[in-house]
Amino acid sequence: MKALHILNPNSSATVTDGIAEAVRPLDAAGIPIRCHSLPEGPPGIESQADADRVVAPLLALARRLEPEAAGFVVACFGDPGLHALRHETALPVTGIQEAAVLHALSLGQRFGVLSILAASVPRHLRSFGAMGVLDRLAADLPLNLGVAELADAGRTLARMEEVGAALRDTHGADVLILGCAGMARLRRPLEDRLGLPVVEPCQAGAALALSHILLTQSHKVLHAR
Amino acid sequence: MKALHILNPNSSATVTDGIAEAVRPLDAAGIPIRCHSLPEGPPGIESQADADRVVAPLLALARRLEPEAAGFVVACFGDPGLHALRHETALPVTGIQEAAVLHALSLGQRFGVLSILAASVPRHLRSFGAMGVLDRLAADLPLNLGVAELADAGRTLARMEEVGAALRDTHGADVLILGCAGMARLRRPLEDRLGLPVVEPCQAGAALALSHILLTQSHKVLHAR
Amino acid sequence: MKALHILNPNSSATVTDGIAEAVRPLDAAGIPIRCHSLPEGPPGIESQADADRVVAPLLALARRLEPEAAGFVVACFGDPGLHALRHETALPVTGIQEAAVLHALSLGQRFGVLSILAASVPRHLRSFGAMGVLDRLAADLPLNLGVAELADAGRTLARMEEVGAALRDTHGADVLILGCAGMARLRRPLEDRLGLPVVEPCQAGAALALSHILLTQSHKVLHAR
Amino acid sequence: MKALHILNPNSSATVTDGIAEAVRPLDAAGIPIRCHSLPEGPPGIESQADADRVVAPLLALARRLEPEAAGFVVACFGDPGLHALRHETALPVTGIQEAAVLHALSLGQRFGVLSILAASVPRHLRSFGAMGVLDRLAADLPLNLGVAELADAGRTLARMEEVGAALRDTHGADVLILGCAGMARLRRPLEDRLGLPVVEPCQAGAALALSHILLTQSHKVLHAR
Amino acid sequence: MKALHILNPNSSATVTDGIAEAVRPLDAAGIPIRCHSLPEGPPGIESQADADRVVAPLLALARRLEPEAAGFVVACFGDPGLHALRHETALPVTGIQEAAVLHALSLGQRFGVLSILAASVPRHLRSFGAMGVLDRLAADLPLNLGVAELADAGRTLARMEEVGAALRDTHGADVLILGCAGMARLRRPLEDRLGLPVVEPCQAGAALALSHILLTQSHKVLHAR
Amino acid sequence: MKALHILNPNSSATVTDGIAEAVRPLDAAGIPIRCHSLPEGPPGIESQADADRVVAPLLALARRLEPEAAGFVVACFGDPGLHALRHETALPVTGIQEAAVLHALSLGQRFGVLSILAASVPRHLRSFGAMGVLDRLAADLPLNLGVAELADAGRTLARMEEVGAALRDTHGADVLILGCAGMARLRRPLEDRLGLPVVEPCQAGAALALSHILLTQSHKVLHAR
Repeated sequence: MKALHILNPNSSATVTDGIAEAVRPLDAAGIPIRCHSLPEGPPGIESQADADRVVAPLLALARRLEPEAAGFVVACFGDPGLHALRHETALPVTGIQEAAVLHALSLGQRFGVLSILAASVPRHLRSFGAMGVLDRLAADLPLNLGVAELADAGRTLARMEEVGAALRDTHGADVLILGCAGMARLRRPLEDRLGLPVVEPCQAGAALALSHILLTQSHKVLHAR
Repeated sequence: MKALHILNPNSSATVTDGIAEAVRPLDAAGIPIRCHSLPEGPPGIESQADADRVVAPLLALARRLEPEAAGFVVACFGDPGLHALRHETALPVTGIQEAAVLHALSLGQRFGVLSILAASVPRHLRSFGAMGVLDRLAADLPLNLGVAELADAGRTLARMEEVGAALRDTHGADVLILGCAGMARLRRPLEDRLGLPVVEPCQAGAALALSHILLTQSHKVLHAR
Repeated sequence: MKALHILNPNSSATVTDGIAEAVRPLDAAGIPIRCHSLPEGPPGIESQADADRVVAPLLALARRLEPEAAGFVVACFGDPGLHALRHETALPVTGIQEAAVLHALSLGQRFGVLSILAASVPRHLRSFGAMGVLDRLAADLPLNLGVAELADAGRTLARMEEVGAALRDTHGADVLILGCAGMARLRRPLEDRLGLPVVEPCQAGAALALSHILLTQSHKVLHAR
Repeated sequence: MKALHILNPNSSATVTDGIAEAVRPLDAAGIPIRCHSLPEGPPGIESQADADRVVAPLLALARRLEPEAAGFVVACFGDPGLHALRHETALPVTGIQEAAVLHALSLGQRFGVLSILAASVPRHLRSFGAMGVLDRLAADLPLNLGVAELADAGRTLARMEEVGAALRDTHGADVLILGCAGMARLRRPLEDRLGLPVVEPCQAGAALALSHILLTQSHKVLHAR
Repeated sequence: MKALHILNPNSSATVTDGIAEAVRPLDAAGIPIRCHSLPEGPPGIESQADADRVVAPLLALARRLEPEAAGFVVACFGDPGLHALRHETALPVTGIQEAAVLHALSLGQRFGVLSILAASVPRHLRSFGAMGVLDRLAADLPLNLGVAELADAGRTLARMEEVGAALRDTHGADVLILGCAGMARLRRPLEDRLGLPVVEPCQAGAALALSHILLTQSHKVLHAR
Repeated sequence: MKALHILNPNSSATVTDGIAEAVRPLDAAGIPIRCHSLPEGPPGIESQADADRVVAPLLALARRLEPEAAGFVVACFGDPGLHALRHETALPVTGIQEAAVLHALSLGQRFGVLSILAASVPRHLRSFGAMGVLDRLAADLPLNLGVAELADAGRTLARMEEVGAALRDTHGADVLILGCAGMARLRRPLEDRLGLPVVEPCQAGAALALSHILLTQSHKVLHAR
């Protein structure tokens, strides 16, 4: 049976394991889910240059997996290679940033984003602008923690609570998005602490891809205009 | 086992049957899906007044079903009572208009909507404005067919192809949305004829609700700001 | 002589009396103004569900009054039933939220809204999005007072001054809107304390309706597109 | 008794007479209305340079009239000097372009504008952008008639019907605005021919000014932020 | 050889000298640059009325200079007369506000503006709305210093640093714009203190005009639509 | 003396020669300009995948050139690697798509884009959304010619005239942008035929880069927020 392949474009097995754990509740949908790291990727994607550089090996990985694939998820907030991969395959492809925003739009009126670094924010704003959803953005605030530092769950959660409370109380967010695949394990505790729905982007990306697969939703412009 | 309840707020069994058929591929997700007509509703919802009038009986129906429910879908394009029902229950609630737009945003850059009547268009524009997604709208064009007339599938499909081609060729749409639950059976044929992805809103609404249920996604602001 | 009928969709005579007092300066325009409570409505409309539920009896009341009516005002911030009533009558119909925003747009560059409850804010944001005026919104902040609590004018005004000052000083508002019909008596004192124009929505709604009546402004799409 | 002064910033008595006739139904509001041409103005304002040049004499005229004034209307589509005059007087000041748009927003979902010349369109688009209402604009199309040519009512009306039909049928407008004070007499006939509400901007500007006067609406930021 | 003429529409030689000094690095482009004060202008332009009043003499000055001109820069933040002058000449014309924003859009994702007075802010917001760039604005905050007070460079720079830090830290600006031609000498020191790119609008306006001149960029709609 | 390096990320010497010819008028600014093809690039960039794949070699090329560089231009409409390169160097970097839009915003109110292929349009729309300038876009229409086919100048110009006329007459564009570096030689003839300003993006990108270099405009966020 063909599987949904989740492609983590960094090389960190810890991040990939966290993703696999996060999407486990979706096994119920009956489609196998396989998670992959990208050996050619950096340990964490922390800049636009990092993001752009992983696209070529990511596309190559997807091409190798395609014969056994029902669909793909690009599992890095920033969605590197999302539109390129959509161009190269007829299978459903979702990006976790895009899917997280779409999920959030059904859970609250203004979404807040917890980014890892200040440098991520302009990159995210460009993506939200490209998606045309800036009117729904409350704010995007950095934790000021690198991908590696996220491994310290206690410190990370404390910082997430602080930033999440600012998004809620100062900026009017009524739903939050975790702005990095590396926080996948902390969705539930953060939700409990803040009393707001929190979207984990890998879950959103996988759920949206499964929906498209089950519905055999065509995902591609077949004819040029 | 608790079910996802899809609430068609009109009284037409034909429409409800079409919805049930459309969402059948989602049975694979393992959660029972039950579709209901609203006996107090009109045969078809064709105006804002129709939409507003069904909210009270719709909320009453949901309240009766809640003990056995895992979540709800409001299955009328226009999403009457969506936000009210979200206020009254802690379960996941989706609206088919909102969900269709969110699905479409992951399938193309500009969505076109096939509405039943010209009078539907301003109502839709208000909704898309409220969702903050007008920058992604190509156009919303009417079929000029009432809900009852949709029963003639041949004529309806011919008209949908004509309007869909205008959305694609004149207005630049690269994904289409069926703007009424009553066209559920015609998604696939339209997709084949136009070569564009076509979103059937009941499918999108049910798939999004199932995602929230599987992920036990909190869907509600628990604390006031 | 036919009258302008102002329909307060809650059942509170105190609120209706406040509205009547607020619109008294408009008697000069020579058209009788009649204010009505809605016996079937709740004492105060505090949620989307409350708002949706009053539409059916509101439409019924308007239908009874229509033979003696020159126009209607829907006098609840949130404008429940506004578009439905416009669909059902050829007479001018205004909503106090819509009219208040339109008045505010001619009085300052960024409007701030004083809402009663935090739960009102997402509802308002959806309306402002549907109106397409979010670029002019400074912020919408709650007083955290229910409709019943507004009766304590001293406490309410003190809280309004505090929230209004935040709208002006932190969010850059240069005109304010009272986000509930129940604050009608407090416009002038708030204006005096804050030194900003303050729009009372019932006044705006009635003034706009009178303008349309005097100008015999057609208010309705007569032919479908 | 103090009057509302309507300032036509061109020197054409014909245009001023048309304005006076258009606003006559507002006499019912009990406030005297006086219409003035600007002797220093050109016969018609057809460019941004024309518009900018009339501001200084317009402000001077308003200053002379202020002792006997209850408020002012700047009666040229384009609103030359509107914000300057608001800065210089504490009385209510409206502009006919701004007021026409605000009226239109309560009469339909998408407004279409009939401009006199193609060169007017970019100027209008800048204004609608400054007002933040572009999401509500259907289109702004030129009649390609200069101010002087508008005097031929038959030809003008025929051309208005043609352009208005394009705004309605091709661009989805459900309310129209006359984009020049010189078409004031033709609102009603155009409305009858097209079956859409048509806003005459001088009427809208005067009605809005009268509303502010009757409500003693403060119209000015009294304190700096 | 024809020159680029920079028109400072106030009468302050100090401001004009500051502009001349600021644009000196552009002499390298080989086109003579001449800076002019406007004797008929006020010492500083601090309101919309001030801005509107200078347009007529500004246009007259440009007409006198045109035979020896390769292009013009309107050197007052607010761009008084910009579109009028574009209408009256076939030569390239830039405005320093417009050009500063365009430069800033290539230097950061969200621009912050340092205005001289609180009353400038709504005027700027109207311009940014007319330009359609509000989604890129972080905030526009006043120094609360008049044009004359800017002469005290020490106090002005201290206040600029304070306001600039607020734009960066509270509002998320990653590029700043000096909102008045009178701060031209302080760009570099502010950039050094804040660690953000700072755009001096006269430099941006002159550089953009030189680009158009060198490229013989047609700048004008030659045919009506 | 350090040079401005223009990086054409495809491998076509013909395209690179066209760019060199287009930017020759900018030699007057006194800064040497060097144009480079990217040997690792495809003959033409016609998809998002093509664009993403050139980023890694493009960054490598820039790194090799940096010691002798005063700045860089990314010379492919779509701006592949623009933000990555800005992250990796402290020198000014412009992208020809971004710069073309910024130039166009100073030349007209609504810009039209001539794309090579229909598949380019959604990619462009995402970029314009990321830039926040969609309110200024008239339309983006394809020539339906691949990069290789552009070499037939006669056919290309005829098709450009046809599409440009549609942008002007049907969509209201008053300035046009050539949506591919491969049309550089055809700007002037198109401008002459259509009577509208036409922006050639390589010229705009180089001019903007030269402006930043001459002004030693810091182009980079030096401190994190």
